[in-house]
Order: sequence, then C-alpha cells, then structure tokens
Amino acid sequence: MAALAQASRGPLFLGGRHLLRSSGLFSRIQDGQSAAQRLSGVPSVQRRLFGDTKILVEFDENKGIAVMKLKSPPVNSLSLDFLTEFSINLEKLENDKGCRGVILTSAVPHIFSAGLDIMEMVGKSEAHYVEFWRAVQEMWLTLYNSSMVTVAAINGSSPAGGCMMALSCDYRIMAENPKYSIGLNETQLGIVAPFWFKDTLLNTVGHRAAERSLQLGLLYSPAEALKVGLVDELVPEEKVQSRAAEVMSQWLAIPGHARQLSKSSLRKPTLDRLVAHRDSDIQNFVRFISRDSIQRSLQTYIERLKQRKG
Amino acid sequence: MAALAQASRGPLFLGGRHLLRSSGLFSRIQDGQSAAQRLSGVPSVQRRLFGDTKILVEFDENKGIAVMKLKSPPVNSLSLDFLTEFSINLEKLENDKGCRGVILTSAVPHIFSAGLDIMEMVGKSEAHYVEFWRAVQEMWLTLYNSSMVTVAAINGSSPAGGCMMALSCDYRIMAENPKYSIGLNETQLGIVAPFWFKDTLLNTVGHRAAERSLQLGLLYSPAEALKVGLVDELVPEEKVQSRAAEVMSQWLAIPGHARQLSKSSLRKPTLDRLVAHRDSDIQNFVRFISRDSIQRSLQTYIERLKQRKG
Amino acid sequence: MAALAQASRGPLFLGGRHLLRSSGLFSRIQDGQSAAQRLSGVPSVQRRLFGDTKILVEFDENKGIAVMKLKSPPVNSLSLDFLTEFSINLEKLENDKGCRGVILTSAVPHIFSAGLDIMEMVGKSEAHYVEFWRAVQEMWLTLYNSSMVTVAAINGSSPAGGCMMALSCDYRIMAENPKYSIGLNETQLGIVAPFWFKDTLLNTVGHRAAERSLQLGLLYSPAEALKVGLVDELVPEEKVQSRAAEVMSQWLAIPGHARQLSKSSLRKPTLDRLVAHRDSDIQNFVRFISRDSIQRSLQTYIERLKQRKG
Repeated sequence: MAALAQASRGPLFLGGRHLLRSSGLFSRIQDGQSAAQRLSGVPSVQRRLFGDTKILVEFDENKGIAVMKLKSPPVNSLSLDFLTEFSINLEKLENDKGCRGVILTSAVPHIFSAGLDIMEMVGKSEAHYVEFWRAVQEMWLTLYNSSMVTVAAINGSSPAGGCMMALSCDYRIMAENPKYSIGLNETQLGIVAPFWFKDTLLNTVGHRAAERSLQLGLLYSPAEALKVGLVDELVPEEKVQSRAAEVMSQWLAIPGHARQLSKSSLRKPTLDRLVAHRDSDIQNFVRFISRDSIQRSLQTYIERLKQRKG
Repeated sequence: MAALAQASRGPLFLGGRHLLRSSGLFSRIQDGQSAAQRLSGVPSVQRRLFGDTKILVEFDENKGIAVMKLKSPPVNSLSLDFLTEFSINLEKLENDKGCRGVILTSAVPHIFSAGLDIMEMVGKSEAHYVEFWRAVQEMWLTLYNSSMVTVAAINGSSPAGGCMMALSCDYRIMAENPKYSIGLNETQLGIVAPFWFKDTLLNTVGHRAAERSLQLGLLYSPAEALKVGLVDELVPEEKVQSRAAEVMSQWLAIPGHARQLSKSSLRKPTLDRLVAHRDSDIQNFVRFISRDSIQRSLQTYIERLKQRKG
Repeated sequence: MAALAQASRGPLFLGGRHLLRSSGLFSRIQDGQSAAQRLSGVPSVQRRLFGDTKILVEFDENKGIAVMKLKSPPVNSLSLDFLTEFSINLEKLENDKGCRGVILTSAVPHIFSAGLDIMEMVGKSEAHYVEFWRAVQEMWLTLYNSSMVTVAAINGSSPAGGCMMALSCDYRIMAENPKYSIGLNETQLGIVAPFWFKDTLLNTVGHRAAERSLQLGLLYSPAEALKVGLVDELVPEEKVQSRAAEVMSQWLAIPGHARQLSKSSLRKPTLDRLVAHRDSDIQNFVRFISRDSIQRSLQTYIERLKQRKG
C-alpha cells in the first residue's frame, strides 16, 4: 500500500540519537568509541557486564538489548549515588550505537524502587539539596528522553519516584502479585510531586485520573493500575522478565529512526517544560525542603521508620 | 519506605488556603475571625446553620464538613440571587479554617440544578447581563478553585450549568435513578457552552468524549455518565448522602496542604485562562445575548415552557 | 428546564459557515449562487451527481446530505489529483447552504483509502513536492475544519493518510470485518506522521494510546480500533451505509450554528497550529523527501510492490 507521511516540524530531522542533543543538557562522547568500551578498556565484543555497586547492567550485544537491574537493598532508594550511577549507565548505553533497547528491572525481591531517598533530604546543606535535586531531574530527563526503547519490568512495589521511573519508560509490564502496589503517593506523605512527575502521569492516564491519583496519593494494586492505564500489561511474577524481552523484540522490529522521531514529537513539550524551568525547580525544592516544619516532619517520619525496624 | 518529592514550581509554595489568593480575585478576611462568625454574631461553636433563602448550609464543626443544600424550587435555577448567595456561602466556608470539606447536594426532589436561569437573560439591560455573567464566572472560579474537598452528591437531574457545578467538584456521586440525566446540553437549546465549561468537561472526560458531548449537547443517563467518566460512582438514591459523607472522610484523611497543592497544579492552567479573559468573556456573552435573534428564540422558549405548565 | 450558556470567547461569533474564514486560507464564493450551481450550470434543484473521475458526490438536496464516494482504484491513493478533487468537492458542498452533512465512504471494495500516494514522492521536482504537500494540508484543513457534519463510513482498510481522513470526521463507523485494519502506521514504513496527524490522533485517543500507536505504527483490527477509541462504532459490513445515514440524521437534528461553534472551539487550537506553521511544514517535508537516502528507500519499496503484483 502506498502510504507516506513526513516527520514533525522543527529540529526533529536534525536527529542523532539524543533527542535533546542540541540543548546541551547532556555531555556526550563524540568519537567513534563507545563510553562502555572506553571505561571497560576491553573490546566491545567481550564486554558483557558493567556497573558499579547499585546498578547491574547486562548488555547482550547480539540483540542490542541491555537489562539494567536495580540492586540497592533494601528498597532501591533513589539516593544521590544511585541516581548518578543510573544516569551515567543509561548515558553509556545511549551513546553506544549497538544498544537499541533497555529493560529496567529490580534485583531486589518484592520491590522495584521505593522512590527518592529521604536520607538525602534531612539535615544536609543547601548545596547538597541542589546537587540531589539536579540528579533527580537528570535521571528523568535521560530516561524520558531516551531514544532507545525502554521497557519497565516491574517485579515489585513501585511507589513515588519508583513509579515515576516506570512511567518514564515506553512500556510497563507488572507482576500480577496483589501484594505489590504502584503510584505517585507523595501526597499521602504530606508532600507534593514536582510538576514534571505530574506531567508524566497526565500523559499516561489523562487529566481526570491524574487529579484523583495525585490529590489522594493513590497506590494502586496491579489490577487497578492496569485498569487506570498506569501499567500496560500484567503477567505472572515469574514471567515478567521473559515477557519484557518479548515486548522488546516487537518494539525493536520497528524502524528505529522513525520510532524515535514519533516518541520525541510526543514527549518533547513535556521535556522542554523542565528544561526551561530547571533552575527554578531546584530552587523551589531547596526552599521547600529547608523549611523547619518540613525538616521536623521528615525527622519524625525517619524515627518512626527506625522504630518499626527496631 | 523512603520516598519523597517536592511541590510544583512557581507560587504554589506561597500557599494559603486560597489557591488564587495572589490574583486578587477574591476578597478575604485577614483577621482570625471567620466570615461566618462575623456574620452570625455568635461564637463559632454554636453556629450550626446559616444561609438565606436559596442555599441551606449545614456545618458540622466537629468533622469540619459542610453540606450545602440547593433549595430554590422548582428546579434550583442558577439565578443572579442564587449564584450570589452560593458564592458568598462558599467563600465563608473557604475562609473558615474549621471547614475542610463541602458536600453539594439538592434539597429539591429529583433535580440537582437545571442550570442558568433563562429569566435573567431575557428583556434585561446590558448592565444586568454583565452582572449576571460575572456572577456565573465567580461561582465557577470559587468552586473549581476551592482548597476544600468538594463532593457533588447528585440526587437529581443536572443539565447544563447544573452539570458544570458538579464537574467543578473533586468527586461526583450520582443516584442511579435512570430517570435522571446529566450533561452539558446547551447545544440542544441552540446555544454554546462558554470556553471554561468546555475546558472543565475536557479535564473530566478527555477530548474525544468532549467533542461528541458538546456537539450533540448530550444528556447522559447515570449509567452512561459513569461509563464516559462524567461521574465517578453510582449508588442507590437513598444512599447518595451517606456515601458522600464516607467519601469525604476518605479525602479528609489525606494531608490537606499537599492535597491542595496537587489540586491547584492540575486546575490552575484552566482557571488562569478565564482569569486572563474574564472581561472579554463577559463582553462576548452580553453581545451574544443582546442579539434580537437570540432574544426572540429565548422568548419563544419561555412561552413554550409556560404553555406546558398551563 | 431553564438552562443557558454562551459561546466561547474570541472570533467564534463572527461565524459564517467556515470556521477559519477570516484566516484567508480558503477561497470562497461571495455571491448567492453556490459553487456547484455555477459549475454544473443547472438549477440546483435538478443537480444530483457531480464530481470528476476520482470522487463521486451524491447530493440529496431534500435531506441536505451529500455522500462522497472515493473511487480511485485500486486503493484510493491520495494522489495530487485525488486530493485536489477532494478539496474542491468538499469546498463546493461547504459553500452550498443546502448541504449540512457529508458522508465519506469508498466505492472501491475492501479499501477505504491506502493513504498518500507514494508515486507523488519519488523522482519528482521540488516544486512538485511543495504542491503535493500543500494539497495534503489543504485536504486536512478543509475536512477537520468543516462546519458540516462529517461521518466516515469506513467500509475497508484505512492505513496512514486514509486513517487521517477518517479521524478528521466527526464520527466513525467501521465495518466489523476482521480483515480490515486502520491506523497511522507510517512508522512501520520508516517514516513519521506530520505533527498535525499526531495532533488529530491525540485528540481522538489521548496521549498514552497515541504514544504506543505512533511509536509502533500500529494497525488495529476493527475490534481493537473500537476499544482504543479510533472508531466510534462497528456494524456488519452491509450496514455501514445505512447506519451512517442514521447517525447523520441524529446529528442534523441538533441546532446547526451551536453545533458548529462547539466543534470549532474544540478543533481550532489544533487547526491553528498548522495554519501558523504551514510553510515550515512544507519545507520540512520537501527537505525530508528530497534526501537521497529517503528516495532510495522509497524506490526499493516501489520495486517490491511491483514485484508482488508481477
């Protein structure tokens, strides 16, 4: 059938792997050698595993698919170290022409990620808060903007920042274990999701569901999450990984350049909003988190967490 | 679980009860005494009922919940008096720190509200049309922007402006009586819903459903309204009030400040659009309603209504 | 019931049949005589059929309904001639006060339209590409902006530009033949739908479904298309036309002016985006299609099509 159309207006055709390349947001390797090659110091054909302590990356070069396993027990909290390592690893893959898809999953049983690490937000310096929040932004910008196919294999609970990670992928498969939950539940903790979490949720479930979800800080069971559109598919827990690989194969069968441009045309307005307000977003966070009242309530929350464990 | 995030950029952190406070739209009491106290002249602990002739307000101070009962027979038409009384009462509650939630319901059997009062729009002066339309705007701005939890207990039919009132709340429970209907049916009457009715509908049911709904002026049965997302829940008629109280309790269990900020971040763009175009919106209405052709068709409509009753 | 509201702000009240009239986009007949009358040279009462070779128009003046039958075998490709004829015929009807509704359907078995004609995009001059893309834009602007009720009677497959035609109507009825498919599948061919195809899809199925649909270039079976909201209704193949006529009658029972203003208030922002970027959109297309790599891949695609037929 003879059917043809053309790409979106503007700089999309300038292309390249990174959709925001011209924004200068991301540093990138310009020579032919991939980041992973240079870092590992071994020929790419033998490279198989890399990553430091918190993220395990398994890269299958034949298939062009990497699996990023979150392994920061007990709950894969998004600490500054975790976020930095995550973004660096994802950038590495982004700049490796051989890598076309990334599966995000957890190496910690029963938890995908518990979200932002509260310890980074209590009793620290203003400079630390700035650095931390920039790392949170960077992670979202890198993931939501990735030109690779990104599939979340959600094999555990995924509240708040953990849910945001999943929402930033192209496709979400969740274990149908009713003990797991997922959602942007910040409001329940007395805090508010930043505007770009909200925008990402809006893009996924629409305005009305986002309104209920954010006002109430809802955590959804897998079945509810499927119904509201927060995840795309449920499978038995033992099949999460194999199903993610299947879905990835389907997505990678699509012409890559056209797929990337389609993705960008839909996500760019949302990404641009944070890029345009990145500094004020950091300032807002720092001002908020530095408040005595917020610090006290976070302290209380931490005490309670410790007592529960004790 | 350690999960934390921060609120949206911009003036949200400036907070206060009223989300548009800085816009100067609403006058507000600055001292510690509530509007209701000052108006009733009695200590707040004894206050129980207030309201004039068209709105009955039952305020349970222990629970912090007010029920606003629309009681302007025969059909709770939104007349200038009704709208003014409604906005004043809602403002009173808004400024009363003890009030955290409002349930809107009808004291007239089988009708929630029939919408804008056509009598305000026929054979009146231009100045009257200006005043009337400003009151319609004020009602929507006050309700859609409320920092309190607002639940519509829809115990009767709710066309046009009545539907708009319900859509402006946070949650909608409708009696599952198939004789009732709800929808923005203005088009069926040969007129057009203003852009902020349209925006409110869009935020509730999405673009496609809004397009059909507005082009056809659709009135939905309770079952259809649930399916399209116009209401959130159906219950037997006798349970509408008790279910509204239950839902209110759930919503009030959420940390208030974070819930308000979440609500504002989602509704502010829609509110801002009317705030920015309030005068031109009034002028459009006045120009439209003053047309000979429109006046004639409204006259005809009124004659037919009278004959039906006669 | 007394319920009234007013139309959206801005130039909507300036009215006229064409919603974008003041934009100067469309040439229009200013005298009382309709385009069809002038072209056919016969009194309008006797006019029954017009159209050249690719579009058959059956106009029932008593009902005020025209049926536009696409009859350009083998697959109703949107060639430059086809598009021009389509827009001229639709404009004729638009300017004929007696015509209030248009049903789009196919006179070619099993295919509604296969989308843009690839032959217009290979080995031609830059001037030709400009003319072709302007005709594609014109068709969408005329159809999506029509003040008439437009119903798509989808009696065959409808990929890419064919799907776009259907999405630009007010209502979509599809034959429930599982051999048929519909969708914006450009990505599968290695190309990207223009931003206004994307916007039209977004307005129909929402952001999340559009993201999957465009990234994967999904073609939906009728049942899937109904589920995702790409079409409004499925009927047995032999009832597509009669059902379209029924639906048209329902829509024409609505007061026309109010319906048109409602439609415009929802579609205008989307239309305005192309109107504002029409030239750059053409330039983008021409630059893209002129690339050696694209020309080569289209050539290869055509060769394969020929071999299949051979």
